[in-house]
Amino acid sequence: MAKVFLGFKKGKRVEDGHPWVYSNEIERYEGDFEPGDIVEVYNFKGRFIGKGYINPHSKITIRILTRDINEEINEDFFRRRIQAAWDYRKKVIETTSCRVVFGEADFLPALVIDKYGDYLVVQILSLGMDRWRDTIVKVLKEIFKPRGIYERSDVPVRKLEGLEERKGFLTEPFDTMVETEENGVKFYVDIENGQKTGYFLDQKENRASIKGIVKDADVLDCFCHTGSFSLHAGHYGAKSVLGVDISEHAIEFARKNAELNGLSDVCKFQVSNTFDVLPEWVKEKRQFDVVILDPPAFTKSRSAVESAIRGYKEINLRAMKLVRSGGFLVTASCSHFMYPELFMEIIMDAAKDAKKTIRLVEYRNQAKDHPVLFNSEETLYLKFLILQVI
Amino acid sequence: MAKVFLGFKKGKRVEDGHPWVYSNEIERYEGDFEPGDIVEVYNFKGRFIGKGYINPHSKITIRILTRDINEEINEDFFRRRIQAAWDYRKKVIETTSCRVVFGEADFLPALVIDKYGDYLVVQILSLGMDRWRDTIVKVLKEIFKPRGIYERSDVPVRKLEGLEERKGFLTEPFDTMVETEENGVKFYVDIENGQKTGYFLDQKENRASIKGIVKDADVLDCFCHTGSFSLHAGHYGAKSVLGVDISEHAIEFARKNAELNGLSDVCKFQVSNTFDVLPEWVKEKRQFDVVILDPPAFTKSRSAVESAIRGYKEINLRAMKLVRSGGFLVTASCSHFMYPELFMEIIMDAAKDAKKTIRLVEYRNQAKDHPVLFNSEETLYLKFLILQVI
Repeated sequence: MAKVFLGFKKGKRVEDGHPWVYSNEIERYEGDFEPGDIVEVYNFKGRFIGKGYINPHSKITIRILTRDINEEINEDFFRRRIQAAWDYRKKVIETTSCRVVFGEADFLPALVIDKYGDYLVVQILSLGMDRWRDTIVKVLKEIFKPRGIYERSDVPVRKLEGLEERKGFLTEPFDTMVETEENGVKFYVDIENGQKTGYFLDQKENRASIKGIVKDADVLDCFCHTGSFSLHAGHYGAKSVLGVDISEHAIEFARKNAELNGLSDVCKFQVSNTFDVLPEWVKEKRQFDVVILDPPAFTKSRSAVESAIRGYKEINLRAMKLVRSGGFLVTASCSHFMYPELFMEIIMDAAKDAKKTIRLVEYRNQAKDHPVLFNSEETLYLKFLILQVI
Repeated sequence: MAKVFLGFKKGKRVEDGHPWVYSNEIERYEGDFEPGDIVEVYNFKGRFIGKGYINPHSKITIRILTRDINEEINEDFFRRRIQAAWDYRKKVIETTSCRVVFGEADFLPALVIDKYGDYLVVQILSLGMDRWRDTIVKVLKEIFKPRGIYERSDVPVRKLEGLEERKGFLTEPFDTMVETEENGVKFYVDIENGQKTGYFLDQKENRASIKGIVKDADVLDCFCHTGSFSLHAGHYGAKSVLGVDISEHAIEFARKNAELNGLSDVCKFQVSNTFDVLPEWVKEKRQFDVVILDPPAFTKSRSAVESAIRGYKEINLRAMKLVRSGGFLVTASCSHFMYPELFMEIIMDAAKDAKKTIRLVEYRNQAKDHPVLFNSEETLYLKFLILQVI
C-alpha cells in the first residue's frame, strides 16, 4: 500500500478528525497507486494519521476511511460501517424514511444512502467510493433486504473527481414513484426524477415541530416544493393551508400528496414566485397565523453571500408582516455559508425593519439522521427557527 | 405620569426592543414619581419609547412594560399579559408542569410564574413588579383556579431593588410537597424549600430527548440533583442508572422519586462529588453507554469565566472517557456567559484531549415555555448537546 506524507505542519485539520487531505498538504509519496486506491497517510513527523482512498485529480486528494492502521478496507469494513450507521438511526429516529448514511459524518466519505420505505437510493460523489459500488450494493441487500435500490449519482460535483453523472437501477427495475410516510403524513417520492434523492429528509423532525402552532391556523407555506410542510400543517389540524412554489411540476406533485392524505380541501396550492407574492400580499394586508419560509439554498458560493443575505432579509421581513400579531414565523436556511449567528442577525434586522417584536420559540438543526461530525463544520448546515411575531 | 428622557444617543438597546433602561442612560425627569411608579420613557429626540416601572435605587432603573402609549398599566393589563403567556404555553408545550411566565421574555419583567399541576409558584424580583403582587395573585386565581399559590421571592437579587427576601403562601396554606409529572415521569416538587421554585422546568423537552439513546443502556447521571434525568432514563427503559450528587438531601429526594415511579430497582443513587468520582472511575476504566452531565452554573460572573471553562472541559473530557465506544454523552450548560460557540469549542477541545471522535446528534436550548426575546441575549442561556462518542 502506498504511503503519503504531509508537508511540514500541514494537515492539522485531518489530524484533528476531519476526513479530508487537500492536494497542497501533500509533500511526497512512497510506492505506487492507481486513482481510487487505498493509501496510508502520515504527518510530517512520520506519525500515522489514517487510511483513505486517493484521487490525485481531485483537490480533495484523500478522504480518510479509518484511523486504525490495522483496519482493512474491504467488504467487512463497509458492512461494519453501514451497520453502525443503521444501528445509530434505529436508536435516534423513526426509520420508515430516513437518511441511512450521511457521508463524512458516518465515516463513509462521499456516500449518501436514503431509505424510502422498502427502497434505497444511493449517491456516490467520489472516485474512491465509486470503486466500492458493488460491495456497497451487496452489503445493502444483506442488511436491508430492500425491494429495490436506485442510484442517483447525477450530480455535477462528480466532475471534480473525473466521474460522469449517472443514474439508474442497482437492482431489478421497479416503479420509482414510491409511496412512503413521515410523522404520519403519507407522500410520494419520485426516486428517479425528484430533487436530490427524491425528498428532503433533513426537515423531518422540524416538520413535526410545527404541530402545536398550526392547529386551527391559517397557514402560508412559501417555497412549498412538493408540499411537505403544507401537508404536515393540514395533518396537524390547520384551518387552511396555502402552499406556494414557482415550479408547476412541484405544485402538481403537492396536490397529489394532498389527495393521498385526504387533505385536498384544507391544503391549496398555487404556482407563484414567492419573491413576487410576498410584497403583493403585504400591500393587500393579507394575514396568516403561521408563515413558513423554507427557501432553497440561495447560493452555494461564498462570493454571493451579500446578495443572499439581502434575499433572506427581504423574505423574512415581508413574511413577518404577513403574520397576525401573536402568530408564528417558521423560517429555515439550508445554506452552508449562513452560520447560525449570521442567520439570527438577519432575522433580528428583519424584525427591526418590519417593526415587529419577535420571540424565539425553538431553534433546531437538521434531523438526527444527519449527524454533525465535529471538526467538519460543512456538515452543520440546516438552521430552523420558530419565532413568535408580536 | 412622570416622563423620563434619555441622554444623547443613549438607550439604543431599549429602542431596539430590550426592556431595560439603565440609570446612566437617563438625562432628565419631568414630573414627580415614587419608586415603583409607572413612567413614560422618551429618547433624546423626544420620541416615545415605552412605559415601565421605575426604581431610582436600582441600576436597572426602568423596565418597560408596554410600547403602546395608549395601553394603561392596570389589572386588565396583567390579565391580558398573563393570559397571552398561558395561551402561548398551551400552544407549544404540555402544560401539566411548566413555566407560565418567564419575566422579560413574556413582557412582564422580573416576574416568574411556574405551574406544578394545580399549584402555582410566583417569584417577584423587582420593586416595580412587587407593587402589583395582589393584582397578579387575583388574576392568577381567575385564570388558573389553582389549588394554591406560593411565593418564592427568596432570592438575593432583590436586594439590588431594596427589597427583602420573602417566601410564603399567597392563598390558604397547603401541603407544599406537591406531586406532579413530566413526560410521563412522576416527581415530587418541594415548593417551599426546593431550588428556585422547586424544580428545573427548563430541561423538560431535553429530558424527553434522551428517549432513544437510553433504552437498554447503562446510564451515569452526574450532578443528578433530585433525579430528573435518572428517572427519565429509567422510564425510557435503561438497563441501569446511577445518579450522583454531592447533596445528601437531593439524593434522598431522588430515591423518593424513584420509588414513586416504581424504578428503585433500576435507578440507584449515591452521594458523591462528581469532580472526584469522574477521574476515579476513569482510572478504574468503568464504562457506561450514556453519561449525562447537567452541572449547576459554575459561575455567574464573567470574571470567573476562565476557571469555569477549565471546569467544563475537565468534566466533559472525563465523561467522554467513561462512554463506551458508540455510546452517548449528554452535556448541558446553563451558564449565561457560556455562549453556544464557546461551549462547542470546549467540547471539541475535550474530545481532542480525550482522543475521542464525537458526532453531534442534537443541539437544543431550553424548553419552549422559556422563550427567548430577541435583543435580550440574557434569556438564551441553556445549551444542551447529545453527542455520540466513538
